[in-house]
Amino acid sequence: MTFPVIGVVGGGQLARMMAPAATALGVRLRVLAEGADVSATTAAPCVVGDYRDLETLKDFAATVDVVTFDHEHVPAEHLRVLEAAGVNLQPGPEALQYAQDKLLMRQACDRLGLPNPEWAAVATVAELVAAGDRIGWPVVLKTPRGGYDGKGVRVLDSAAQAEDCRDWFALGFEALLVEQKVDFSRELSAQVARTPSGTTASYPVVESVQTDGVCDLVTAPAPGIDPRTAQAAEEAAVTLAEGLGVTGMLAVELFETPGVGPGFMVNELAMRPHNSGHWSMDGAVTGQFEQHVRAVLDLPLGSTDTLGAFTVMKNYLGGANEDLYSAFPTAMAAYPEAKVHAYGKSVRPGRKIGHVNVVAPLAEDLDAAREAAEGAAAIIRDGHRAQNEPGAQPAPDEHDEHQEQR
Amino acid sequence: MTFPVIGVVGGGQLARMMAPAATALGVRLRVLAEGADVSATTAAPCVVGDYRDLETLKDFAATVDVVTFDHEHVPAEHLRVLEAAGVNLQPGPEALQYAQDKLLMRQACDRLGLPNPEWAAVATVAELVAAGDRIGWPVVLKTPRGGYDGKGVRVLDSAAQAEDCRDWFALGFEALLVEQKVDFSRELSAQVARTPSGTTASYPVVESVQTDGVCDLVTAPAPGIDPRTAQAAEEAAVTLAEGLGVTGMLAVELFETPGVGPGFMVNELAMRPHNSGHWSMDGAVTGQFEQHVRAVLDLPLGSTDTLGAFTVMKNYLGGANEDLYSAFPTAMAAYPEAKVHAYGKSVRPGRKIGHVNVVAPLAEDLDAAREAAEGAAAIIRDGHRAQNEPGAQPAPDEHDEHQEQR
Repeated sequence: MTFPVIGVVGGGQLARMMAPAATALGVRLRVLAEGADVSATTAAPCVVGDYRDLETLKDFAATVDVVTFDHEHVPAEHLRVLEAAGVNLQPGPEALQYAQDKLLMRQACDRLGLPNPEWAAVATVAELVAAGDRIGWPVVLKTPRGGYDGKGVRVLDSAAQAEDCRDWFALGFEALLVEQKVDFSRELSAQVARTPSGTTASYPVVESVQTDGVCDLVTAPAPGIDPRTAQAAEEAAVTLAEGLGVTGMLAVELFETPGVGPGFMVNELAMRPHNSGHWSMDGAVTGQFEQHVRAVLDLPLGSTDTLGAFTVMKNYLGGANEDLYSAFPTAMAAYPEAKVHAYGKSVRPGRKIGHVNVVAPLAEDLDAAREAAEGAAAIIRDGHRAQNEPGAQPAPDEHDEHQEQR
Repeated sequence: MTFPVIGVVGGGQLARMMAPAATALGVRLRVLAEGADVSATTAAPCVVGDYRDLETLKDFAATVDVVTFDHEHVPAEHLRVLEAAGVNLQPGPEALQYAQDKLLMRQACDRLGLPNPEWAAVATVAELVAAGDRIGWPVVLKTPRGGYDGKGVRVLDSAAQAEDCRDWFALGFEALLVEQKVDFSRELSAQVARTPSGTTASYPVVESVQTDGVCDLVTAPAPGIDPRTAQAAEEAAVTLAEGLGVTGMLAVELFETPGVGPGFMVNELAMRPHNSGHWSMDGAVTGQFEQHVRAVLDLPLGSTDTLGAFTVMKNYLGGANEDLYSAFPTAMAAYPEAKVHAYGKSVRPGRKIGHVNVVAPLAEDLDAAREAAEGAAAIIRDGHRAQNEPGAQPAPDEHDEHQEQR
């Protein structure tokens, strides 16, 4: 039997959710986990080790057929050593650098002719002020590396606020990224899988609502999106996957900008399964985790056809309820159509600990699907139904914070 | 965190396929496996032990919150001891006996008013001959216990053939089951889940094509079935689940008998996920393995709505190709819509080693879905495409053996 073993660096929920897909295909997973209690440890065989240590990475790679990633934080210099030693890395360091470094990503988008916000690399407060004056305030300051879920990002309304960022220039980066604060209508995400052989498979472009800089609610496909914008965004994701040599899943987070350029601008890249693609686990013929498994093994990609008119994905973050399972009976009884996913993580405020998917078979089922996904997630997060039974609707303002740029 | 641990006795593919469902829900599985190399060992934490040994069962049960089963072969007397000791068995021995003993099952169907074939319990060749003369030859002789996938079953055309069965009466059973050989149009299967609290959820009745006594091809729902027959069959499965106190998944295998009784007769029972329900892994909102997990935990049951007009499930048995994975590229390239499931088992002729599901979004897609499921399964089984490219159609007679009764 030649069924391969996939090594995953990082034991978070993305590694965890690769396990069911691997099991279905008869493929084995082996995870290099940050600790004995991280998410993936109850779902797949794990070894505990530090992904920042080259020897640990080498030892791990020697036990698997291909190495892929739960996150983008493995040091690029280690990846280059592993690649030189013949380790099968998917994606490899040449591609990964564009997900690790936002300055390289902006340069690449320009090179590939994709719609960037106005941007500049700035090394001093004076350069930041000059760039802000040129681009027009407000602007967004970002560290090129190390940021995620809204961390390493700051919105600056004026040159005066730029003066407050003097400490950011002492973080050790040769330059920081400053960008136009895009006036967008909503956030979108375009996902594509690419194999080492070069084949690609695109998912429909989705709407992604962010709350406090964290992905919160996804609707797939993005309701009411201009078909030309959707097609251009899908093509942009393919262009990036091919142009940067991505293998596995690529997520391209986008700002929707109706009437400006092709109707979107590129926000960020992730080269792995992504929160904005969790809907596909229940809403597409081939979910993103199976697709990632196929891609890194250079197997033919599966169909990305959808299984309903829409699928809604709602995250639940750590909240009042510390005993998630105790709320399952209430949530499942209220919403038998809800696909409940739990990550095996302990509850901490604001921590991503699970999500709920609901498929809307027909377009007119979208509101009901959103209510079910939000209702089930709220019950699990809070431990009980909302006051306004039976819908468990979110508070009216809950999703209005997505105007804040990540 | 109070997420429970489910213990599964038996490490076959049914235990294996519970693992992804458990992982999604954050629930843990622990398997009592027959050996270190059985199917489930690469998908879930396993301990190796003999399910026929009471002390092994006791020790295993002490490490989990609920015990369920991959098969029906655990000795009933052991289950009664465990139950008396307070072990949470789902299903319990009172229910399981009807899946373990075909004579008890026939009696129960009579008691519940469900359509049985003509049958009798016979303890001698003379009683067998008398029963055959009364029922009318041919008849089917079955051992009450220990048979599966066509084993422990023999078709007898005449009293003379009954004389050849003298050794069957020396197998140690107090009586054997003899049944009318039903003149059926096709085989059907009705599945229902039931929780300890008594809630039930029915799946649509499916068509199941058997080849050499082994489930081969399933179409869900059964195409062209009389709606009254479908409803009566669903109700019969619920009647059995409630009347016998079943918990978890129940499969009721049926003979379709148009114009006779309600249009079907009961063939066999299985109290666990069943081959005739594998389609639901990709074709229903809640697959049978997740439903079984929910049921044995007494969680509310999930929606059994279908995700397409039809779903086709095709088994692949061990064949010419001993290196299954080597055929995946060809199969997946030809059929991107195929959901390939592999059980992590070594290849032996005729052994169930995997299956393929294909969803037909619309009714007119059924033929294409069947071709895709059969085509992908054939490539994996044979290691290459069939001669008549590109369809990889089965030989015309391949499925004509289903007239042979199990």
